[in-house]
Amino acid sequence: MQSRTRVRRHPERGVYDAETVHAILDEGMIAHVGFVDGETPVVIPTAYGRDGASMYLHGSAVALWSKRMAEGVPVCVTVTLFDGLVLARSTFKHSMNYRSVMIFGNAVLVSDSQEKLHGLERIVEHLVPGRSREARGPNETELTATSVLRLSLAESSAKIRSGGPLDDDADFSRPVWAGVLPAAVTYGTPVPDALVPPIVSPPDYIRLYER
Amino acid sequence: MQSRTRVRRHPERGVYDAETVHAILDEGMIAHVGFVDGETPVVIPTAYGRDGASMYLHGSAVALWSKRMAEGVPVCVTVTLFDGLVLARSTFKHSMNYRSVMIFGNAVLVSDSQEKLHGLERIVEHLVPGRSREARGPNETELTATSVLRLSLAESSAKIRSGGPLDDDADFSRPVWAGVLPAAVTYGTPVPDALVPPIVSPPDYIRLYER
Repeated sequence: MQSRTRVRRHPERGVYDAETVHAILDEGMIAHVGFVDGETPVVIPTAYGRDGASMYLHGSAVALWSKRMAEGVPVCVTVTLFDGLVLARSTFKHSMNYRSVMIFGNAVLVSDSQEKLHGLERIVEHLVPGRSREARGPNETELTATSVLRLSLAESSAKIRSGGPLDDDADFSRPVWAGVLPAAVTYGTPVPDALVPPIVSPPDYIRLYER
Repeated sequence: MQSRTRVRRHPERGVYDAETVHAILDEGMIAHVGFVDGETPVVIPTAYGRDGASMYLHGSAVALWSKRMAEGVPVCVTVTLFDGLVLARSTFKHSMNYRSVMIFGNAVLVSDSQEKLHGLERIVEHLVPGRSREARGPNETELTATSVLRLSLAESSAKIRSGGPLDDDADFSRPVWAGVLPAAVTYGTPVPDALVPPIVSPPDYIRLYER
């Protein structure tokens, strides 16, 4: 663990084991990728997939940068899961329950076409496990049109807040409700495309989708 | 609209009216705040609240920066709502439905204590409308311990992807299910703190909470 991954604000919420970091990444759907354009910070939401101790990021504006940098582009990638609202007796103690991961490193543009195929498969399998076995894989034109970036998870840390409000003793006598309103991402009924033949029903990995 | 807010990738998804930008911010819960530390980008998840054409950000590592900069710290704030998975007949056309807002500007540390109180109230009311009338407001010590940043929404844009997959004509004959798996944040049963008197039940703004 290098120093820039140390959780400074609320250090008691810092978690550094790979298992926790991987579990949060595996549950998350969108990564917020930060990079620097001149002196301007830019934060872009992006699809991703994990592959052991690395992650692949779907190409976007970041790829334009990586092309110009042989060593890759310095990024900070943050994935945040929102778990609930924490309602305390004082406004000051209000909080959110969440699990987040922050990764520092250089995102490197994947140029090898075999690794690019592999990275794209990891991204699709991250979104919908099982999908890459059914959908048509990318052809040469599509592969060229896509950018994939690889980022090591070596410099990563997690931050977790869970549980109820931490009110001051003096506030417990207040006749105000306090506690947690749990939140989660839930998935609805699959909506088929108009051109899906009626005989083709949603596969189990869609019907029973959960993270 | 200045040029850095123009949506470059998938420009057809760009939306620039304030009404759309405000609606996405009002529905969102967590902002990803990007700033630059030396040459390193940093992206931190933060609570926020909107106030007309400005937003207030809850203090965090960003506040350490703002103190040192009279004009505020250059930030990019991104709020992303995840609306669903888009399953196409080819892996290449897979996508996500989402609504995001990106804001560029200088986040300024709020030093006036009246505005700080106002900013904190906007943040709490953003999370749980109605809450600031019931919970105890911040005392002097708490106010000093909190940082609030103000950011103008003048340089902001939204990006929206909705609807089904956009498959190539040649792929429609494939016998694979395609469509959208809708996603949304949902809220569970409120969990009271152990010390809430049994006579105090969750108020309507918690029981009927929705965004």
